[in-house]
Amino acid sequence: MAKTVLLPVLLSFLLLPFASLALTQDFCVADLSCSDTPSGYPCKSSVTANDFYYHGLAAKGKINDLIKAAVTPAFVGQFPGVNGLGISAARLDLEVSGVVPLHTHPAGSELLFVTQGTVAAGFISSGANTPYTKTLYPGDIMVFPQGLLHYQYNAGTGPAVALVAFSSPNPGLQITDFALFANNLPSAVVEKVTFLDDATVKKLKSVLGGSG
Amino acid sequence: MAKTVLLPVLLSFLLLPFASLALTQDFCVADLSCSDTPSGYPCKSSVTANDFYYHGLAAKGKINDLIKAAVTPAFVGQFPGVNGLGISAARLDLEVSGVVPLHTHPAGSELLFVTQGTVAAGFISSGANTPYTKTLYPGDIMVFPQGLLHYQYNAGTGPAVALVAFSSPNPGLQITDFALFANNLPSAVVEKVTFLDDATVKKLKSVLGGSG
Amino acid sequence: MAKTVLLPVLLSFLLLPFASLALTQDFCVADLSCSDTPSGYPCKSSVTANDFYYHGLAAKGKINDLIKAAVTPAFVGQFPGVNGLGISAARLDLEVSGVVPLHTHPAGSELLFVTQGTVAAGFISSGANTPYTKTLYPGDIMVFPQGLLHYQYNAGTGPAVALVAFSSPNPGLQITDFALFANNLPSAVVEKVTFLDDATVKKLKSVLGGSG
Amino acid sequence: MAKTVLLPVLLSFLLLPFASLALTQDFCVADLSCSDTPSGYPCKSSVTANDFYYHGLAAKGKINDLIKAAVTPAFVGQFPGVNGLGISAARLDLEVSGVVPLHTHPAGSELLFVTQGTVAAGFISSGANTPYTKTLYPGDIMVFPQGLLHYQYNAGTGPAVALVAFSSPNPGLQITDFALFANNLPSAVVEKVTFLDDATVKKLKSVLGGSG
Amino acid sequence: MAKTVLLPVLLSFLLLPFASLALTQDFCVADLSCSDTPSGYPCKSSVTANDFYYHGLAAKGKINDLIKAAVTPAFVGQFPGVNGLGISAARLDLEVSGVVPLHTHPAGSELLFVTQGTVAAGFISSGANTPYTKTLYPGDIMVFPQGLLHYQYNAGTGPAVALVAFSSPNPGLQITDFALFANNLPSAVVEKVTFLDDATVKKLKSVLGGSG
Amino acid sequence: MAKTVLLPVLLSFLLLPFASLALTQDFCVADLSCSDTPSGYPCKSSVTANDFYYHGLAAKGKINDLIKAAVTPAFVGQFPGVNGLGISAARLDLEVSGVVPLHTHPAGSELLFVTQGTVAAGFISSGANTPYTKTLYPGDIMVFPQGLLHYQYNAGTGPAVALVAFSSPNPGLQITDFALFANNLPSAVVEKVTFLDDATVKKLKSVLGGSG
Repeated sequence: MAKTVLLPVLLSFLLLPFASLALTQDFCVADLSCSDTPSGYPCKSSVTANDFYYHGLAAKGKINDLIKAAVTPAFVGQFPGVNGLGISAARLDLEVSGVVPLHTHPAGSELLFVTQGTVAAGFISSGANTPYTKTLYPGDIMVFPQGLLHYQYNAGTGPAVALVAFSSPNPGLQITDFALFANNLPSAVVEKVTFLDDATVKKLKSVLGGSG
Repeated sequence: MAKTVLLPVLLSFLLLPFASLALTQDFCVADLSCSDTPSGYPCKSSVTANDFYYHGLAAKGKINDLIKAAVTPAFVGQFPGVNGLGISAARLDLEVSGVVPLHTHPAGSELLFVTQGTVAAGFISSGANTPYTKTLYPGDIMVFPQGLLHYQYNAGTGPAVALVAFSSPNPGLQITDFALFANNLPSAVVEKVTFLDDATVKKLKSVLGGSG
Repeated sequence: MAKTVLLPVLLSFLLLPFASLALTQDFCVADLSCSDTPSGYPCKSSVTANDFYYHGLAAKGKINDLIKAAVTPAFVGQFPGVNGLGISAARLDLEVSGVVPLHTHPAGSELLFVTQGTVAAGFISSGANTPYTKTLYPGDIMVFPQGLLHYQYNAGTGPAVALVAFSSPNPGLQITDFALFANNLPSAVVEKVTFLDDATVKKLKSVLGGSG
Repeated sequence: MAKTVLLPVLLSFLLLPFASLALTQDFCVADLSCSDTPSGYPCKSSVTANDFYYHGLAAKGKINDLIKAAVTPAFVGQFPGVNGLGISAARLDLEVSGVVPLHTHPAGSELLFVTQGTVAAGFISSGANTPYTKTLYPGDIMVFPQGLLHYQYNAGTGPAVALVAFSSPNPGLQITDFALFANNLPSAVVEKVTFLDDATVKKLKSVLGGSG
Repeated sequence: MAKTVLLPVLLSFLLLPFASLALTQDFCVADLSCSDTPSGYPCKSSVTANDFYYHGLAAKGKINDLIKAAVTPAFVGQFPGVNGLGISAARLDLEVSGVVPLHTHPAGSELLFVTQGTVAAGFISSGANTPYTKTLYPGDIMVFPQGLLHYQYNAGTGPAVALVAFSSPNPGLQITDFALFANNLPSAVVEKVTFLDDATVKKLKSVLGGSG
Repeated sequence: MAKTVLLPVLLSFLLLPFASLALTQDFCVADLSCSDTPSGYPCKSSVTANDFYYHGLAAKGKINDLIKAAVTPAFVGQFPGVNGLGISAARLDLEVSGVVPLHTHPAGSELLFVTQGTVAAGFISSGANTPYTKTLYPGDIMVFPQGLLHYQYNAGTGPAVALVAFSSPNPGLQITDFALFANNLPSAVVEKVTFLDDATVKKLKSVLGGSG
């Protein structure tokens, strides 16, 4: 075995050439104060173990009374350590009769683990419009392919909880009802592109905070 | 200048090592008789110029009376030459009052060129649900980011035509109304995940051919 | 609102052009009977909701007495629905004093959710060899960048469980001790490339089933 | 149906967590005042519908007398909305006898739609050097695989126009003659690497503005 | 330290779940008897160390008298072990006055190491047509970006040798002169798209074996 | 042939639209003074031929007495021209009995060319832990798949030299012994996750400069 006396030589000549790599592409913790790029945020220059750790999914999210559910994200905006790593997470809390309404993630596939309760979930294929639906129990997992419409709702008699992972640090979340009714897109346009009647569109705009 | 007599040497010794590449990764025309893979279809072994050419967008598509529009795709299924090349196309024909209803392309961004008439188009961002809308005239182009809800409709007094390109050979097309109402997803589930009432869901299922 | 009588027209002329897409690139459930490709397995031709569902992580894995732990994968080989979707999963069960020894995933980053107990986890950067370590409690998440050495062990007084997601359908698992000592790589080579002495190598080869 | 009074709760607790995503990875409109990165430009912080719209292809480009043609790009430099979206566009105007000389796009495949006139087009495979050529009429499309030499010229008796899409926001354009003769690469080097004689090289350097 | 008696338990319960991964995505040695796909060839089912080894670059390639050079590839077609790994290689032998004529690699960047002699090399940017040229000596390296025209020639008084690596298992090689003159593309078309005169085109077609 | 007088027209109207592309995505030489991003460094605004050239591998690296070897990288940190190009390089110098200890490159596959001497090399698959080993002579090449443990050592009677290429501009280098013993990761943790005994761990920490 080599003697300890050789150590300075080792550190000087073998390790030094790699020093500039140490904080770069093993990982790239997001510097959220910079502009994003198509591949993610620029890398933060000084990192610690806490950058790779997130506590925000440990507690139940604050339940919204309309959907009786909470969606708590751990995307790059909340958990900068996932930047550039092709993965992120979220927590779903579904009260009795709670629902995560029909939605898509434009930039990632979703993997759902049920940890408590009973969850009905499904997605719909494009083209043939085939629904793929399952009732899920604790320990079950289901995958929802990128960009396809899907939903989850509580199908049991007590609260349900699920942990969710995504194949992107920033998968996005587009809830169809919010996209249609929670903004100022004119009712006439919404009706034209959905086949919904005027009364339905106006009622949902009112409920979801839209105008026009 | 080298003499012609050297040619056999040239062909024998310089070209031969590359012969096996000729039909492979310059391009990979889809062999649609094989199973698809996550990166596209296996490559057809014998190709001609016709594999890189498609005539199917030259004529107006057959107009559907419900939407007064035709969407004619030139995706990998119709135009195998685009397999693996990150691009495909389609043609939109919009009669007066015609519409391509709210939809997404789960696997590609869209670039639209208007070649005739007036087209109103828009997409909605995820998260903030902001609509981005424009009225487009011949020669105008608009880009619709991957996976986001968008629509196009005829906003003029005569027919409109647009050519469309996608950033994928197989971008998919998920029309929200068809995903919700043109299949056997139970009405109770549709109502639960959309906030639509039972009468609306049943009426649209009837119009669009769904059951349940 | 359009009348029901128009439906056959709609189905005939709008939907038919897309029929060939229905089973392809919305998703690509692995046909494990085919050869893999660099982007994943060829797509199975007939799929159901069960292809996107996996029950194998619901129960505790069978504990190995040496490491007092079980690693139960839901990679593409066990859960073909994740093929091509950029994501997969696993379950870790750690008995008291259990450990998942030092390892890498050559093809994916890992996101770990602790669901029960206390888990000590860490990874080591390349170049600077900096350890990033945390003690994790239920609800905590930690991310381990692709290809870097990392470990998890039970740091509590009762069993621990964690759910794990990966940024690849097939991330691989290379346990350093198994790579070095559970095969027939000659002891002299192992010693040469690790600085370990002969007695240590031979003892670990014996424990882990290697020869040479 | 939920009552309107619930709306503030909904907006406060469901939408807020996603607010930081709104301007990021649904899209990433290029901030051209920043340095480019390997994946594209950093994202502009404030966007409107006009960022996704481009009018610059509506009019005929200014014809160059030498090639009797105009190539008008809508790449990321002209149309910042395509940044990060894997697509861009251009317009070709070909006068009678006009030509887009032999060229490649180093970073993208090309899809050409003829909208007026008659266009002769072709590309040449690597390895086997096989030409794939077609004469195209209005409505025809042709695809040119990434990086391969190709050309288009007017093969009719009136002006021709084509719209072009690329599989990259910044595909590049390398016209072989310009690369060889429109710079100061020494004639002796050009001759050495092309087998062209000195008189030909000097004449073309003179025509195309090169020196040396 | 755990006792040897535990080994069967270890092998049975820890290793078995991963057995199906062993031959898959650590690597994917090409099965050249199958059709290629856009991501590479399907994986060979049985591999040995020889699949990751190639001897074909050890000897000088057979020199072609016209270019006084040999290009010996170790692409996926010759070295199936690189399939899916994003890398391949080649060897250049340049006699005195030898040249690798102007060419591109449509699908990969190139890194050149000079191991013997003196090599003049250069590439030309697109857009601005700027030449970037260097004279290289043993030990020097130069990188040629994907898809750009470049060349190498012997600039010394003795033979030169270089080893080349590519950022793709199948980068392709399109030699401009061969693409133009070594096939049956009609002379009139070549002249139209290159500004070369008829005599020059016919002479080069004769030298390089083309017709038409 | 077109007359020279047309040149100003040509330059004004054909070339100008592409001027903004000239320094962007043909290549993206790293500006190392900026923060890295997940796809690499922002692009330097002014480049010359020297940015694509590197002389640092021409001379033998400084040998470290412990391993009797030198690893000299030409990664993006040393050779900014490879930024974004998917390739980089290094040089290995192995004195008699020299060794590059067991290591991985988390972000790239490696291709090794032996230029002098005799090199024993091998890698170990994940899952099945199969070693793939070869003895390599001048001119031989071997490929090491991304993320897998591998080693090289001098197996001859004189010095050995190898040139190495990677499928990434920044592949990383994680030497297992350094990751375990050259930092302050507590000995008890190292022992827990490696099955090594306390004396071995403390001895190696001492040799390699670690503490704890």
